[in-house]
Amino acid sequence: MLFGKVTIIGLGLIGGSLAQALRESGEVRTVSGVDTDLDSVEYALKNRIIDEGSLDIGEAVSGAEVIVAATYVGTIADTIRSAVPHAEDGALITDVGSVKAGIVREIEGFIPERLGFVGGHPIAGTENSGVRNADPALFRGKRCILTPTGKTPPALKKKAAALWKLTGSEVYEMDPDAHDRVFGLVSHLPHAAAYALVDAILSSEDPDMLLDFAGGGLRDYTRVASSSPEMWVDIMTANRDNVLAALRQLRSSLGKIETALEKGDREALLKIFSGAAKARNDRIK
Amino acid sequence: MLFGKVTIIGLGLIGGSLAQALRESGEVRTVSGVDTDLDSVEYALKNRIIDEGSLDIGEAVSGAEVIVAATYVGTIADTIRSAVPHAEDGALITDVGSVKAGIVREIEGFIPERLGFVGGHPIAGTENSGVRNADPALFRGKRCILTPTGKTPPALKKKAAALWKLTGSEVYEMDPDAHDRVFGLVSHLPHAAAYALVDAILSSEDPDMLLDFAGGGLRDYTRVASSSPEMWVDIMTANRDNVLAALRQLRSSLGKIETALEKGDREALLKIFSGAAKARNDRIK
Repeated sequence: MLFGKVTIIGLGLIGGSLAQALRESGEVRTVSGVDTDLDSVEYALKNRIIDEGSLDIGEAVSGAEVIVAATYVGTIADTIRSAVPHAEDGALITDVGSVKAGIVREIEGFIPERLGFVGGHPIAGTENSGVRNADPALFRGKRCILTPTGKTPPALKKKAAALWKLTGSEVYEMDPDAHDRVFGLVSHLPHAAAYALVDAILSSEDPDMLLDFAGGGLRDYTRVASSSPEMWVDIMTANRDNVLAALRQLRSSLGKIETALEKGDREALLKIFSGAAKARNDRIK
Repeated sequence: MLFGKVTIIGLGLIGGSLAQALRESGEVRTVSGVDTDLDSVEYALKNRIIDEGSLDIGEAVSGAEVIVAATYVGTIADTIRSAVPHAEDGALITDVGSVKAGIVREIEGFIPERLGFVGGHPIAGTENSGVRNADPALFRGKRCILTPTGKTPPALKKKAAALWKLTGSEVYEMDPDAHDRVFGLVSHLPHAAAYALVDAILSSEDPDMLLDFAGGGLRDYTRVASSSPEMWVDIMTANRDNVLAALRQLRSSLGKIETALEKGDREALLKIFSGAAKARNDRIK
């Protein structure tokens, strides 16, 4: 076995899927899960997603070799803060937050020397949430990004990578700030745009009639808008500056289309559309 | 048999699928197809998508009870103009264009009294194009919108509805201007936004790195951006005023998100995101 006890704090879609994947890997002695929601803990125990369940964070992290905070982005730092006093010397603390720079900075500011922290972000998820949608194959073949800094103990970085490899993830490293800029554009911006698109329809004179005819393209396009609104408020707030910059870039690209359309400039439109279609087809797998 | 000869002008995804659906219905004596591309005509004949094929529009429409223009939106009126001299008295002329008001107005301006026209728009399609992707089930369970006006002979409107019902479509009627406003918002706008989103990434400092991390959400979201750029230039140009109005509505909704984010107003963000998620989940099937 590669690992002793691993504690997952937060049994949602990501936490539950990670727990189950680790359990099924056979390389973790005990997978412990803790959540404030009793129902989630009971469900996870009953469905063998975790070996041990608890409502008490101190109890759950006690004796753990690895502690993973799998709560919403806005609560990760506080979650880890409350786990620290109960964590064993030498424990690795990591997280699964979709935004990294602020979290990493905050946690590195209070984490004691006897523990080590490295940020993590598994690029996986569905529009569903909650432990009832947990899937041990969720991370298979997907990327998991670790965001070490100069303060990260190299041995703990390797340990975090080994943990994620057990789920079938491909492990990458990125600087926390670069991570947030990239995901501000490729993930947070499309979500903001999908919400805005549905909002534009809802803000029109006759949203009922419009929604009645909204099929195909709009369904695919707005799938991301059906995921947890609270989670996305959290993510966008945590990555505020990058999301605002990304929104400005989108506004500029929409402006290019608007100007070309106003002028009836078919060549300019074709250039934008063809470039986008080519990139989409060649590069976005 | 309900129909004698039906001629489809333009053997692309829509024209080919319509031809094949009509042929397989057993309710059309002869399905005739005409295209400027020899390869498409040969493929359609060889694969029994059409009964008769031609490169000559006059030959193809001769003796037809129904003539369907299934070319790009920008060429539909001219296509019909060139078919008119060869069309039999009493023939129904219709089309499959995604934009209606301009086309309907233009065609009603030149169509002789001995013929009848009604606009049509099957709400179906995929990101693929061309007769090689033809699928006789493409329209099954999907809506087909007819856009009759005060000038449309009622008998020909019924005939157009009967034709589309053979494909498994549910037939609806809408005013041409209302149609264009609705689809400007629920179809053309999402396409423009998807192109803009990819363009925003391509316009950034390091598009390669961004595209490298663009998975999941962005893939779904930009599926519509992978369809034919030429076709979408055509559609948006033809529905210019409605698309411009829709772009302004999107800009306003993006602005609401931007303002809430700048102010750190989580309540306002949650209201926009929750409203959109609810509408998406309840109403967009």
